[in-house]
Amino acid sequence: MIPRRKHNASSGSLPPPDDKHASNDYIISDGAPREGWRSALRRRINRKTLHKRIPITAWLPQYNTEKAVGDLIAGITVGLTVIPQSLAYSNIAGLPPQHGLYGSFLGCFIYIVLGGCRAVPAGPTAIASLLTWQIAEGVIEKAILLTFLSGLVKLLMGVLGLGFLINFVSGPVSSGFTSAVALMIATSQVKDLFAITVTGATFLQQWISIFSNIHTASLWDPVLGFICIILLLLMRKIGMIKLGAGNENGPSTRQKVLTKVMWLLGTCRNAIVVVLSGVLGFWFVAAHGASPVRLMGAIPSGVPVPRPPPFSYQRADNTTADFLEMVSELGSGIIVIPLIVLLEDISICKAFSDGRTVDATQEMIALGIANIGNSFMQAYPGGGSLARSVVANGSGVKTTFNGLYTGLMVIMALQFFTQYFEYIPKAALAAVIISAILFMVEYNVLKPMWRAKKLDLIPGIGTFVLCLTLPLELGILTGVVVNIIFILYHAARPKFTVEMLKTEAGVEYLMITPDRCLMFPSVDYVRRLVTKCAASSSVPVVIECTHIYSADYTAAKSIEQLTADFHARRQPLYFYNVKPSVCSIFEAVAKPEHFVVFYEDDELDRLLAADERLQPRKQPPPAGHA
Amino acid sequence: MIPRRKHNASSGSLPPPDDKHASNDYIISDGAPREGWRSALRRRINRKTLHKRIPITAWLPQYNTEKAVGDLIAGITVGLTVIPQSLAYSNIAGLPPQHGLYGSFLGCFIYIVLGGCRAVPAGPTAIASLLTWQIAEGVIEKAILLTFLSGLVKLLMGVLGLGFLINFVSGPVSSGFTSAVALMIATSQVKDLFAITVTGATFLQQWISIFSNIHTASLWDPVLGFICIILLLLMRKIGMIKLGAGNENGPSTRQKVLTKVMWLLGTCRNAIVVVLSGVLGFWFVAAHGASPVRLMGAIPSGVPVPRPPPFSYQRADNTTADFLEMVSELGSGIIVIPLIVLLEDISICKAFSDGRTVDATQEMIALGIANIGNSFMQAYPGGGSLARSVVANGSGVKTTFNGLYTGLMVIMALQFFTQYFEYIPKAALAAVIISAILFMVEYNVLKPMWRAKKLDLIPGIGTFVLCLTLPLELGILTGVVVNIIFILYHAARPKFTVEMLKTEAGVEYLMITPDRCLMFPSVDYVRRLVTKCAASSSVPVVIECTHIYSADYTAAKSIEQLTADFHARRQPLYFYNVKPSVCSIFEAVAKPEHFVVFYEDDELDRLLAADERLQPRKQPPPAGHA
Repeated sequence: MIPRRKHNASSGSLPPPDDKHASNDYIISDGAPREGWRSALRRRINRKTLHKRIPITAWLPQYNTEKAVGDLIAGITVGLTVIPQSLAYSNIAGLPPQHGLYGSFLGCFIYIVLGGCRAVPAGPTAIASLLTWQIAEGVIEKAILLTFLSGLVKLLMGVLGLGFLINFVSGPVSSGFTSAVALMIATSQVKDLFAITVTGATFLQQWISIFSNIHTASLWDPVLGFICIILLLLMRKIGMIKLGAGNENGPSTRQKVLTKVMWLLGTCRNAIVVVLSGVLGFWFVAAHGASPVRLMGAIPSGVPVPRPPPFSYQRADNTTADFLEMVSELGSGIIVIPLIVLLEDISICKAFSDGRTVDATQEMIALGIANIGNSFMQAYPGGGSLARSVVANGSGVKTTFNGLYTGLMVIMALQFFTQYFEYIPKAALAAVIISAILFMVEYNVLKPMWRAKKLDLIPGIGTFVLCLTLPLELGILTGVVVNIIFILYHAARPKFTVEMLKTEAGVEYLMITPDRCLMFPSVDYVRRLVTKCAASSSVPVVIECTHIYSADYTAAKSIEQLTADFHARRQPLYFYNVKPSVCSIFEAVAKPEHFVVFYEDDELDRLLAADERLQPRKQPPPAGHA
Repeated sequence: MIPRRKHNASSGSLPPPDDKHASNDYIISDGAPREGWRSALRRRINRKTLHKRIPITAWLPQYNTEKAVGDLIAGITVGLTVIPQSLAYSNIAGLPPQHGLYGSFLGCFIYIVLGGCRAVPAGPTAIASLLTWQIAEGVIEKAILLTFLSGLVKLLMGVLGLGFLINFVSGPVSSGFTSAVALMIATSQVKDLFAITVTGATFLQQWISIFSNIHTASLWDPVLGFICIILLLLMRKIGMIKLGAGNENGPSTRQKVLTKVMWLLGTCRNAIVVVLSGVLGFWFVAAHGASPVRLMGAIPSGVPVPRPPPFSYQRADNTTADFLEMVSELGSGIIVIPLIVLLEDISICKAFSDGRTVDATQEMIALGIANIGNSFMQAYPGGGSLARSVVANGSGVKTTFNGLYTGLMVIMALQFFTQYFEYIPKAALAAVIISAILFMVEYNVLKPMWRAKKLDLIPGIGTFVLCLTLPLELGILTGVVVNIIFILYHAARPKFTVEMLKTEAGVEYLMITPDRCLMFPSVDYVRRLVTKCAASSSVPVVIECTHIYSADYTAAKSIEQLTADFHARRQPLYFYNVKPSVCSIFEAVAKPEHFVVFYEDDELDRLLAADERLQPRKQPPPAGHA
């Protein structure tokens, strides 16, 4: 009836951490007195740790021409995506367009040295832009300080090992959040698409404002915008076509070349649309002196001079906000932005990790330093973005070195091309954002979520709705808290299997099997349930503890009360297969004569025979006395 | 190697809830159209539910003379404890002494009808008094409104089934909180013991103030106070003596009577000390016109006229605070007081339950209504207190009916004896509190906690220190949050057993056994660990899922990625003994050809033989093809 005892030696049978193995290589004994801290330091900065914390040291020695070519192509292709994206995203953040470009080169360079994931070029992202808009409210100084502080927080999280916090954002919450952000970003672009004025802070207010102002829309802005959207979606579709995939002998050379060209068309679609519409805008201004569609306007030229982030700023009412006031205005954003950026970044890293493990700590350190660096270039917070990673991966990226070319292209754009950017129509940029962002609405997770676990729809849809109605950070925090309540409920309400069994000697007993650990939220429930089950009959009760992997003091106290209750009722209570670690916790509190543990099936009969609590009621069988 | 599959049918094999069984008794069919809601209503208010929700209906029909005598004696003895306690506790709450008595009769009467635990007479408690002082800051109107609102919250918690919240206060947190409260209450009484002025809000500030003002102490107040404390402790010790316990034939009749008298002396020690010192005070005033020790002063006589709790009050600066302002001033106290009172009450109920289960919901409803009632009598929040329960239990209480006599005694005291109360020396009341409260410091839990689980000392000692330094409710909330983080860490970091095993056919494989459920906080960690273990060798990997009792969508997504990674690496990955409920979650997301589950030991060889991922590397043994 009772399965053979299977005693897992311990949980520590994993291979020991590698650091300790490699450390011996580098220990040099140069005199006893100085050995202490020196060797300690050396042990810390051995080769393995160096490769882990400064990943460039791991891949640079193996760098070759093939990798260099791959990185060059990928870097340039990504650059063609980054430049229009950066211009557009800074619009989402409510900042002048150049600030997006300011955040797209220094961070890339830092990431080459420190970054662990080759397909993640650090720069502005859609989500971080929207959060920056909500938190800094379009004030440049606050946005830049936010970059600095969020970089610091990321770095601290990496150093202090707080990366596990990200694990508390579940799949459903993350999907709900991303989808809500996508809808909000798309909504924020409607004003540029139709050239109307949109007011309101929440999603609903903005749509009401859109519908009441739509009659003031210009004609040519939406025409250009929708043409751009259609073009972008078409090019995206074309880029996905693989010619000759159905051929028996694989695609022919001509088909391969054509496929490559189409892929390039799809990949560079944003740059193509922006350049074409920019030429159109330039032609309108040059030929007619004015454009029928709204243009971006002048952008200051040149790479910004590095300077520390602003620690005070002039408010609209001419009062000055000092550092502490700025921090209190940024509020929880200082924590939320790093968490969200890291969440996005690490999920991208995982998607492109090819099954290798992702070092989240290293990502935090890399992005933290990259953001701190970016704050000296007047950039707003950023990280890895999915769109760029897809392009990089598709272009055959080999190492993080591709970031060099991307960064150089951005610098060149800032230095030489900003005067042309002013002719880019706003509607074209809105089209770039909208046609990219709509694929971020994760409606396709609903079905598997429904099939897998319907309860997970609550945090998923809840986060989605809350993010659309509340400030974003409140929305996602509420979602996380709701999801944590699920975990706590799980801890508080273990499930039980209750069976009436017979020993080999034919004595009936009640076997109660809880399915998880005994921790303080559940002990009361367990005690009540065991008492209730046991009260219905007076047969001996066995609690099967195979699944109880952990316990605490409160559980031990409860077990003590339970054993005392059973003792007072003269009903035998035994514990079966208690893990040694759990056993020692229970034994520290419970009276030893009340707390009886057994591990082998046949022990039960001997225990029952010897149990004095059963003596007055019935005579024990004469055989098998312990 | 792999234990026999043991498939627990389901977790639902508990006996079904009793309500449904009993409901048939009362269903009457009186015509089809009206049957719906009537039978539904009848089903809800059947006899079982009636007994559960109005417990008096269960015990009153069986009430007899023996029980009546037990209740009478217990009621009167408790009354002798309640009256001095109520006077003293209202001093802790910073309110005039009569308000303690106001809260000691109506609540008792209500509890007779609704209360589930015979040994819990509802009234002022030390902890609730201190919390009331911290929250209402001695403003009577706020204290009374707090009674009303906290009663309402308790009732709501009972009706909405939120009683499980109390389970999140663990044993260590509860001990730390109680101990801190005991020290703070003792500190608050030092001023009356020495007749000095003590300022400061925190524990530390108060002790600094005590030491700097101790030179202003009067002579006779501390003399009387310490004499009272010594008397009280002596009587307490005498009350615990059991004469003739070592006799072979049991105690003689004379010994029994003497033991009973000594027990009575111990039980009524508070009343004895208060009456004796009161007589002393009266004699001083009558004989000398003045007392060398400070007396309580005049107390208004008579039972208060019932009136609704105040929904506004006059502040010290003559401004009026309306209801909403009062609520915002009470703040989190409206939630904290009910939680703490229920926590204390339910733990007392459990201590005196004789191994029966305690209906926490019913306690919440009973205490909720009792407090709402008390608020109409101008009382401050209260509940069950351990001291009174010990006395009631020791006096042979049989049912909650004993509350009638206690309540009547309090009414008599209010009606006829208040003019005598004014002669009670303050130092004597302080002595009553101090000598009772010192036994609430739970230093004796430290040792078992240390032996059982050292980690539990962190929330325990942390709560103790925080409660002494922060406002009480913040202290306990922090303790609870820290303890919840333990639970979350548990959920996020499952433990693994990793073993290299051989199938019956001699094929080596890696067996990875996680020890708990897969939920979103841990899935990432699990995936990383499995990937790491598997990467060190290319043998097939089996994940043993016996202990995985639950999973969610995020876990399913992670399993999908894991299976896809293994598939891409051409390394076989199987899942062993997955519970059907967990299996259906994984299958909803993972690709069926990647997600392979087996339940019998010998299946593994067949699976390995058939696995095409192994084909290019080695030829499968010819036998046993599935």
